[in-house]
Amino acid sequence: MKKYLLAAILFFGAVQFLQAQKDYRVVFDLTSKDSLDQRAVLRWAGEVSNSNSDAKVEVVMYGQGVHMVKDKSQYEETIKKLMANKNVSFKVCAVALNAQGIDKSQLLPGIQVVPDGIYEIISKQREGWGYIKAVH
Amino acid sequence: MKKYLLAAILFFGAVQFLQAQKDYRVVFDLTSKDSLDQRAVLRWAGEVSNSNSDAKVEVVMYGQGVHMVKDKSQYEETIKKLMANKNVSFKVCAVALNAQGIDKSQLLPGIQVVPDGIYEIISKQREGWGYIKAVH
Amino acid sequence: MKKYLLAAILFFGAVQFLQAQKDYRVVFDLTSKDSLDQRAVLRWAGEVSNSNSDAKVEVVMYGQGVHMVKDKSQYEETIKKLMANKNVSFKVCAVALNAQGIDKSQLLPGIQVVPDGIYEIISKQREGWGYIKAVH
Repeated sequence: MKKYLLAAILFFGAVQFLQAQKDYRVVFDLTSKDSLDQRAVLRWAGEVSNSNSDAKVEVVMYGQGVHMVKDKSQYEETIKKLMANKNVSFKVCAVALNAQGIDKSQLLPGIQVVPDGIYEIISKQREGWGYIKAVH
Repeated sequence: MKKYLLAAILFFGAVQFLQAQKDYRVVFDLTSKDSLDQRAVLRWAGEVSNSNSDAKVEVVMYGQGVHMVKDKSQYEETIKKLMANKNVSFKVCAVALNAQGIDKSQLLPGIQVVPDGIYEIISKQREGWGYIKAVH
Repeated sequence: MKKYLLAAILFFGAVQFLQAQKDYRVVFDLTSKDSLDQRAVLRWAGEVSNSNSDAKVEVVMYGQGVHMVKDKSQYEETIKKLMANKNVSFKVCAVALNAQGIDKSQLLPGIQVVPDGIYEIISKQREGWGYIKAVH
């Protein structure tokens, strides 16, 4: 009897864990041009996404972080693979692009532009997304 | 008919967006003495505040971040201009001041002191403010 | 009469402050191998914990942050003292350990391993814990 009870507890525990994992939503905040920071955020986004294909992952770039998604970026292939999962998105701040004289056309294909990167991040936080500052 | 419907949708969408923007509240966490980090947080605070004068912006400093608001700080004028908007505030942690032997009188005018900078930040998070770690 | 009113207001204010402090829960996110970052997070964890012994403090390490709690860590004594308070815990990410070829047996005694450090952090955020990225 005890065995069945234990099995039932484990089963419901596992269901609960999977349900929780289902609600995996995380926004990464990248402001760094340091390649170690940029590689770190791409690795973390990939690890989250590969182990939970339903996880919603958003990388928001402003400040110097926008350079990660410029054309001729060394990460083009990595980013393309990550975006093959529709739940993964990359968004750059229009204010940062403007301040640095970067045109939208200079970004990698599929990169989205948002009016205000900080507002994008705090909106996601308010909607219950987790927040991770991407610094290695 | 379709046109009116579209106009109505756009109108309510815009209202919703403005209402959302109205609730722009963000706390910046600064612990760095690096001038690039300090300039970044001041620039971001200014961008948020200039484009949304109702936005509530708070910069909390502890650790090495407190040096940004000491007297003879190179940012005195910038900080003064930011604080001209009553919705922008700068708060330093009393524990950090004490640990570094800095007296309240050595701070720029208008800088507030809070008993515990970390507690200040997590209280704001709990009240629904967005959180941004200020690292360039 | 005015004096009593003031006293009453101060009293209830203090009660409210203490109740708020009771709910001191903070998760620190450490991904850095920089000893200044590591010392900072240990100092902050200690300051929070020493001034509020009921405060719940969790330090989550992934990326290069895991090295802080490996055996022969220079912080062994400090971490041991912090963990003497049951409300303070240190958790490392299994994905990061695996990626860096570190076995659980190489960790300091008492260090916990979680399957996914980022998920641990955002779960805590969702439960209402405050979040602090540990960068000096």
